[in-house]
Amino acid sequence: MTDVRGRSIFGTFFHAPAPGALEVLHEAVVAVDEKGTISRVARRGESGYEAARAAADVVLPDGCYLLPGFVDLHVHAPQYPQLGQALDVPLEVWLQKYTFPLEARYANTDFARRSYEALVADLLSHGTTTGLYFATVHQEATRLLVDICLEKGQRALVGKVVMDDPATCPDFYRDGSTEAALADTRAFIDYVRAHPDNGEARVLPVVTPRFIPSCTDESLAGLGKIAAESGCHVQTHCSESDWEHGFVLERHGVTDTESLDRFGLLTRRTVLAHGTFITGADMDRIAQRGSAVAHCPLSNVYFSSAVFPLRAAMARGVRVGLGTDISGGPSASLFDSVRMALAAGRMLEIGVNPDLPPERRGRPDSRIDTATAFHLATAAGGHALDLPIGQFTPGYHFDAMLIDTRVPDGTIRILAESSLEDVLQKILYLASKPNIVQVWVGGHSVATRTPSAIKTVPSNPS
Amino acid sequence: MTDVRGRSIFGTFFHAPAPGALEVLHEAVVAVDEKGTISRVARRGESGYEAARAAADVVLPDGCYLLPGFVDLHVHAPQYPQLGQALDVPLEVWLQKYTFPLEARYANTDFARRSYEALVADLLSHGTTTGLYFATVHQEATRLLVDICLEKGQRALVGKVVMDDPATCPDFYRDGSTEAALADTRAFIDYVRAHPDNGEARVLPVVTPRFIPSCTDESLAGLGKIAAESGCHVQTHCSESDWEHGFVLERHGVTDTESLDRFGLLTRRTVLAHGTFITGADMDRIAQRGSAVAHCPLSNVYFSSAVFPLRAAMARGVRVGLGTDISGGPSASLFDSVRMALAAGRMLEIGVNPDLPPERRGRPDSRIDTATAFHLATAAGGHALDLPIGQFTPGYHFDAMLIDTRVPDGTIRILAESSLEDVLQKILYLASKPNIVQVWVGGHSVATRTPSAIKTVPSNPS
Ligand SMILES: [Zn+2]
Ligand SMILES: [Zn+2]
Repeated sequence: MTDVRGRSIFGTFFHAPAPGALEVLHEAVVAVDEKGTISRVARRGESGYEAARAAADVVLPDGCYLLPGFVDLHVHAPQYPQLGQALDVPLEVWLQKYTFPLEARYANTDFARRSYEALVADLLSHGTTTGLYFATVHQEATRLLVDICLEKGQRALVGKVVMDDPATCPDFYRDGSTEAALADTRAFIDYVRAHPDNGEARVLPVVTPRFIPSCTDESLAGLGKIAAESGCHVQTHCSESDWEHGFVLERHGVTDTESLDRFGLLTRRTVLAHGTFITGADMDRIAQRGSAVAHCPLSNVYFSSAVFPLRAAMARGVRVGLGTDISGGPSASLFDSVRMALAAGRMLEIGVNPDLPPERRGRPDSRIDTATAFHLATAAGGHALDLPIGQFTPGYHFDAMLIDTRVPDGTIRILAESSLEDVLQKILYLASKPNIVQVWVGGHSVATRTPSAIKTVPSNPS
Repeated sequence: MTDVRGRSIFGTFFHAPAPGALEVLHEAVVAVDEKGTISRVARRGESGYEAARAAADVVLPDGCYLLPGFVDLHVHAPQYPQLGQALDVPLEVWLQKYTFPLEARYANTDFARRSYEALVADLLSHGTTTGLYFATVHQEATRLLVDICLEKGQRALVGKVVMDDPATCPDFYRDGSTEAALADTRAFIDYVRAHPDNGEARVLPVVTPRFIPSCTDESLAGLGKIAAESGCHVQTHCSESDWEHGFVLERHGVTDTESLDRFGLLTRRTVLAHGTFITGADMDRIAQRGSAVAHCPLSNVYFSSAVFPLRAAMARGVRVGLGTDISGGPSASLFDSVRMALAAGRMLEIGVNPDLPPERRGRPDSRIDTATAFHLATAAGGHALDLPIGQFTPGYHFDAMLIDTRVPDGTIRILAESSLEDVLQKILYLASKPNIVQVWVGGHSVATRTPSAIKTVPSNPS
């Protein structure tokens, strides 16, 4: 395990601080301080570059590239055991028949530990350095998820789920009462903030109403108050499906977005999962509050009945990042979400039904380019969370993954001359777990496949 | 390397001989004869099962399952170097700007060897035991692809591409003349059939007009004649994009399908790539001729501007299998095509545009279930090619892949009790290269990751 706190790395780095703008830091030097923060980025041609290069004490091998770690904005941690299953029923059936019974099992902390340990280890090995997690209603298992993230070194935002409405939540799986739900949320926030291993605040607590249909108005109001008092992040679902969108319209007479806003749940630190059916006015409201949407393109296929209008939302100033939506989306790798975001954008733009004439088939201006997809999975996720992650910029945490394009077990082949832009395209479309040979969070090595991939310069003269 | 010719295997096998019908051969015994053909399948409870089980000399470890090898019905072998690149332009630009220049490089047999060796090895390690390949116009490089498939043990159908129309094909990449194109096709067929290493006819020659836009009427007629005389397979593209569909309508006054039929190119052994815009009458014609469509759902996203109406075609009796369409589709793994066939079917059915009401958003009855997707990638591919492959049935070749669900490097996790049907779902949605621990073609081991995965019984009493 090669930690890089207090070291500087020479190699080629890809990042995308803004939509549509890939930046290639070719043969650059990135210095990491003792706290795991990037202290300097020296580019070729800049003054001081040669000295920085000579002083670099970690050198990336040929064919290896550094990317910012992925930021997964929507993960249901307890649903990992049903990944790749039960994708053939509508959202409301899926919840009652499969998902609530599974989540209820996390009352058992042995089951929780086994499942959460597998999930966090797997996400790290997929290059996901930050995860925004829905846990379950259970206090103990949710604390366990925090402990596991701290132990394994992942940056994480974790929420105890609130679902207290007896009219919609099953007897076997809901909060004991509204008061208990709110008290448990407060206690959980305290637990995370006071955790002895959380001195760097690498794990943060999140106010987490599951979604309006599962919460009473009292719990929604109470959670809005807690969010305001604590300054915590907020996460919930918003206008995911026709059913959910219609449910809230009927119950509150306004859209999901407007209703959440009335409860004080749209803050600069709010992430709304999906948002598939948000209106233009909703987008403006979300943008105004500084809240964000977690676009989950794989899950949309199975549970949303439409594609989130990503480009329209971005054009109106909504912050958007990507989420796997484990287990609504059948992949734990954010690479698969990047690929589906590209595919879904094109399918929305060009349309799907060959019986329609091309001009009536799709919705113009819906596709994104690969640089934007890369941005969404990295820098945009950091921006959504209001955290300094997702890019190689001084002041940002060194959360990164090392891609080796030459691993024989991997799925990238460079068989002809390729520009660095082409190499990044290949990485985004083709990389798989074997290509991710090392992962760091805050400069600490948290996953490694081939310990020898990184060469450190033993007798550094500086 | 564990060859299984002349051996019998005890374990659990999944296959799907018919659409929508998964068959689980739980703790069954499959016997393979000396020619690599399945001679017997003994199921639990059948008479003679206990004796067959006792006589089995290969035993699959726990957590391991055998699936039929995948049949990839559409691969442009020379395009492998640009996999995951150049996906942002329309088909006609993509051909002229990127693809023809790349394919022209296969005049260089060193380049061809390096590229084709990587491709065939990678496809085998992805579980693709049969590939239907477009090569290039070049005689020498195309023969090399045949040699490499024979050497590496893949079942393959290979075509020398014909593109002889100077009006549409660039000077630097087309057949020298119509006569040369036809003579080269004949010579290539002879080469494959007379190949000294091809005694089992594991590699077959294919008559391969690239598509109508790149061929003169003379070459199309000549190739139809060669197909009739030789009984060879035929492959070409059909109604892939609005542009291609319109081009043929304008040039021949009939659809692509009808035009190909007039040239004698729709036979029982014809595979049409894409077919996105085929009409109902086209479907009936294809079904009547016994021809097949290679559905390439990943490539459709980038080059077809619509989703192939798979369910409609199947309902009209068209044989359909799956193709990666390397490099129009950005993945060499047919698992990714299975996943996109599932996603695209749902997106066609439910629609994509959230601004439309649900009842006007999609096209009813378009989704397929996982059993059908599995069928398409295996048994249906064999049926399309008129070859006994893709299922565990006596008389069929033993072409198979061994999936280990427990490989730590892999991407399958069984964390809760799962039925065997659930396990197959997880395999189809989640498996990646590390999970494919061994692959056989005709009973010969052709790719292996962990040589020790298979236990053979050393002192078999029978
Ligand atoms: Zn969710
Ligand atoms: Zn093609």
